[in-house]
Amino acid sequence: MKYGIAVFPSKKLQDMANSYRKRYDTKYSLVPPHLTLKDPFEMEENQIKEFSKEVRKVAKKASPFTLEVYKFSSFYPVTNTIYMKVRENESLLALHNELNSGNLKKETEHPFVPHITIGQEMNYDELSDVFGRLKLETINYEETVDRFSLLYQLENGTWTVYETFLLGNDEK
Amino acid sequence: MKYGIAVFPSKKLQDMANSYRKRYDTKYSLVPPHLTLKDPFEMEENQIKEFSKEVRKVAKKASPFTLEVYKFSSFYPVTNTIYMKVRENESLLALHNELNSGNLKKETEHPFVPHITIGQEMNYDELSDVFGRLKLETINYEETVDRFSLLYQLENGTWTVYETFLLGNDEK
Repeated sequence: MKYGIAVFPSKKLQDMANSYRKRYDTKYSLVPPHLTLKDPFEMEENQIKEFSKEVRKVAKKASPFTLEVYKFSSFYPVTNTIYMKVRENESLLALHNELNSGNLKKETEHPFVPHITIGQEMNYDELSDVFGRLKLETINYEETVDRFSLLYQLENGTWTVYETFLLGNDEK
Repeated sequence: MKYGIAVFPSKKLQDMANSYRKRYDTKYSLVPPHLTLKDPFEMEENQIKEFSKEVRKVAKKASPFTLEVYKFSSFYPVTNTIYMKVRENESLLALHNELNSGNLKKETEHPFVPHITIGQEMNYDELSDVFGRLKLETINYEETVDRFSLLYQLENGTWTVYETFLLGNDEK
């Protein structure tokens, strides 16, 4: 089964991302707008309880962090993806690190670039056109993230949340 | 903002439901297959933390329950919906009751009929045809549910999970 870990930002930010995703993101209908903390990975279903226990430990030791989107960017030419760039900060990087090391280590394909995808698998002309316009736009928005989610993928490609984890003391 | 509470059953049951939903459910792409525990209701966003605290209390006092789907059924002629009927049991009814009384009470439109929708807003001929065939099929499947989710709706009609709650002691 395929699992992954992501942050779903506020409704406001998700709505904003969706206004682009609707047109430019081939995965628009598979999952809400998100910041990936752990790339999709394969795991046997019977391991999920143990895995989620480990994730809970990480979440408890972590702290809420500021999610600041500050510009539009692109992974082109690696992939034809455009995204809202999320500013790196210590808490976010520490959380990502904890979720990708020790017992939770899985193969990762690329270095961590915190982002919220708004377009992917675009053809070059469209990417070039859309990104050309977005680069000129100012975007500056921040909010506090106090939770993240462990998800699994269904046969139709959509993702269901298995469990959410509150950052820090989960009795707040 | 619109909120709701639902159980997402196992991947296996969700995949099974989706095989029908894909063809017959107009809300197929808005939310994964689910058993609704609390109908959608309006609440100010700034009330969600307090609300979720109350829900957490309910979850802790509740127990995991058996989700058994045992036949196909329909809400016709009230609505043109077909669903997998979930067998009532004490734990499920108690949980539903707790989530819809006291501080958590909201207006509800109809009595609780535990179900997983597999088709809705179908035209009469299609409903009649599909349901006619499904009624002849045997379905008997059960699993243990140990969690449920509080969700909110985005502007595009899709639902994002705000928080999951483990039934009983959440440190298992």
